[in-house]
Amino acid sequence: MNAAILTIGEEILIGQIVDTNSAWMATELNNIGVSVRRIVSISDSLEEIKSTVNELFNEYEIVLVTGGLGPTNDDITKHALCELFNAELIVHKPTLDHVAGIFAQRGLPLTELNAKQAEEPNNCEVLFNPKGTAPAMLFRNGEKILVSMPGVPFEMKAIMELHVIPEIKSKNSTRVVYHKNIQTFGLPESFLAERISTWEQNLPENTSLAYLPSPNAIRLRLSTTGTNISLIKNNVQLQIEKLKSIIPDNIFGYDDDTMAIAVARLLIEKSAKVAVAESCTGGTIAQLLTENSGSSKYFLGGVVAYSNSIKVEQLKVSNADIEKYGAVSQQTVEAMAKNVRSIFKSDYAIATSGIAGPTGATQGKPVGTVWIAISTPQATVSEMHTFGGDRYRNILRSSVTALNMLRRILLEEKKG
Amino acid sequence: MNAAILTIGEEILIGQIVDTNSAWMATELNNIGVSVRRIVSISDSLEEIKSTVNELFNEYEIVLVTGGLGPTNDDITKHALCELFNAELIVHKPTLDHVAGIFAQRGLPLTELNAKQAEEPNNCEVLFNPKGTAPAMLFRNGEKILVSMPGVPFEMKAIMELHVIPEIKSKNSTRVVYHKNIQTFGLPESFLAERISTWEQNLPENTSLAYLPSPNAIRLRLSTTGTNISLIKNNVQLQIEKLKSIIPDNIFGYDDDTMAIAVARLLIEKSAKVAVAESCTGGTIAQLLTENSGSSKYFLGGVVAYSNSIKVEQLKVSNADIEKYGAVSQQTVEAMAKNVRSIFKSDYAIATSGIAGPTGATQGKPVGTVWIAISTPQATVSEMHTFGGDRYRNILRSSVTALNMLRRILLEEKKG
Repeated sequence: MNAAILTIGEEILIGQIVDTNSAWMATELNNIGVSVRRIVSISDSLEEIKSTVNELFNEYEIVLVTGGLGPTNDDITKHALCELFNAELIVHKPTLDHVAGIFAQRGLPLTELNAKQAEEPNNCEVLFNPKGTAPAMLFRNGEKILVSMPGVPFEMKAIMELHVIPEIKSKNSTRVVYHKNIQTFGLPESFLAERISTWEQNLPENTSLAYLPSPNAIRLRLSTTGTNISLIKNNVQLQIEKLKSIIPDNIFGYDDDTMAIAVARLLIEKSAKVAVAESCTGGTIAQLLTENSGSSKYFLGGVVAYSNSIKVEQLKVSNADIEKYGAVSQQTVEAMAKNVRSIFKSDYAIATSGIAGPTGATQGKPVGTVWIAISTPQATVSEMHTFGGDRYRNILRSSVTALNMLRRILLEEKKG
Repeated sequence: MNAAILTIGEEILIGQIVDTNSAWMATELNNIGVSVRRIVSISDSLEEIKSTVNELFNEYEIVLVTGGLGPTNDDITKHALCELFNAELIVHKPTLDHVAGIFAQRGLPLTELNAKQAEEPNNCEVLFNPKGTAPAMLFRNGEKILVSMPGVPFEMKAIMELHVIPEIKSKNSTRVVYHKNIQTFGLPESFLAERISTWEQNLPENTSLAYLPSPNAIRLRLSTTGTNISLIKNNVQLQIEKLKSIIPDNIFGYDDDTMAIAVARLLIEKSAKVAVAESCTGGTIAQLLTENSGSSKYFLGGVVAYSNSIKVEQLKVSNADIEKYGAVSQQTVEAMAKNVRSIFKSDYAIATSGIAGPTGATQGKPVGTVWIAISTPQATVSEMHTFGGDRYRNILRSSVTALNMLRRILLEEKKG
């Protein structure tokens, strides 16, 4: 089955709120095998509501509408639907009793505006709103349904869960859509695409692939439709196994995994602890490691050595080396990693030193240059990377690249 | 002028991401007096792209399209636009040079897929993308414009700022909508609303107020429409002066100011440096202070003392005190602040110790309990706060509250 979502109101069109209602509804519909083909936002204009609802209801099997059902004058969805479906507004007694009860409970008189909320189109099914005064309306056209709900998120969600999802499920018991995310890092999008192109071309017909890049990862999403969920899951797992043999080093996790979570798992597995010595990343690696609950199991802490004096005094980096090679150098970053590991008595240590920008570039070291070192019980190794010109991205990419470097080392050790 | 926004890609339709791009574009368009009438999301389907773009471009003066311009097979926006506008794809030399340059800088070969990103429709204006490889395309029809941009948020924003907003501004010079943001912290939304209700009721008729709460701040947005921008700005400034007299301690900045920027300004003003000792905030205060360029002027660095052993060994907190009072205590956090200030030789220091959750609560110290201390050349002071149950919010609110505490102290010192 296919569906469209329509939100009515100015708040989205002026950018005042982000449309989280549609994202929530889309997720719920996907979970029960409904394919959302279109999401539309329009303003509270009678003509626009009528023409857009009409168009969507002609095109799609399910149309979910939110917004414009409040008690004030700018809320006109109900009137638009009446005109469109040739309905009349009549008092809906159970709604009136419900609204009157809410006001009585609060010791407030029932205003005329609120009483009007109990008037409903005479040819729809009125859906009870357990969290508010305005009920939802369900219109049918053959097998098709259109539901108009309030835009207040928790009222909409309650109505979806109580009425709409069960109604759709009862129509659509057989079809399933399954999504699986594969988190990759270390290959730019175009290289990744080339490397896995044969695999991609040989995906089964009911399976599609999407690339979702961010500074943290390139997420690959496999979407499969079918009728038997366990069969689908098995088939997706088969595809993942094939992919793993093509890019074994680049897959660090699945679904909501982050690079920090992948590193955490490996550290916990060997009861090892890590410390950090951060210059250009300014605390971001520590922040990524601690944003997950339970991080005290593997993270001891670290030094944010933003100034050279801290590198020398706290991390015992040789002042002569900093003068000779610079703070952004292999010598400095390796000393930072090695020394923080010994000072903090950790098993592993991560160090960064680079030029996040926009200022600070020197001859031969453009903005985006970063040295990363990992110190282990066996050795201290380092890499230089050159990222781009954007400060925010440089800091984030440096941090994730450093965590990935530790991940690769931990995996190598695991192999033995 | 009116506009429509179209996003292309499955991620929004399956609810995987929330459509923040459209909200950002809508805000920007509103800021320059353009009324957004419709926001639409569709999938990467050739026919749907063609029919929807055609419909929107017939109806609206400005159509902004994002998504579907990546190098991979699922990205087909360019082909759809070619078919719709009867164009042919030809190599765009400046784009090819730009893409080749990016790859050369990273020491990578140029793949065929990437070279294809430099092929553009022969009847559009190619807009340079300063943050990525895929440029944007601008098509004209009389006075109307259609711009197709990549969906990666920071690439889209860069193209909007560099090309699209100036282009639209040049068309649309008479009507002005002016928005001014006032950043507040320290009063919950309902308290803030009550405190400023009289001021709000007396705002001029052409001015509206919106509350935009986040864990970092409650942003108040004043929106004013008119024709004379300097007159509007003067009137808004008058309202802000009135507001400042009502909540003098709670306004920390304007527009894109963050709490870290507000603190940075005060530190730079007195050429003072700050260091941090972070336990529960795990590097987040350092990260907030260093995300802005030029932070080495006022930030020396710090210790992320996640484990108690680091608090004792690196920050010289008394082990006996930790055992007696606990790591989350006034004694511990004050020692952390005082000692990091002396060890790092900074003028000011910030320290945090708390229970970010979801685990770690003890008798009398629920999840969300945090001690914050500020050490200054004169004294060390501390406060206890109790936030909620959510780890992410606890870490962020603790960090911003700590920065705000330093801000209030710096302001007090300034008054003398």
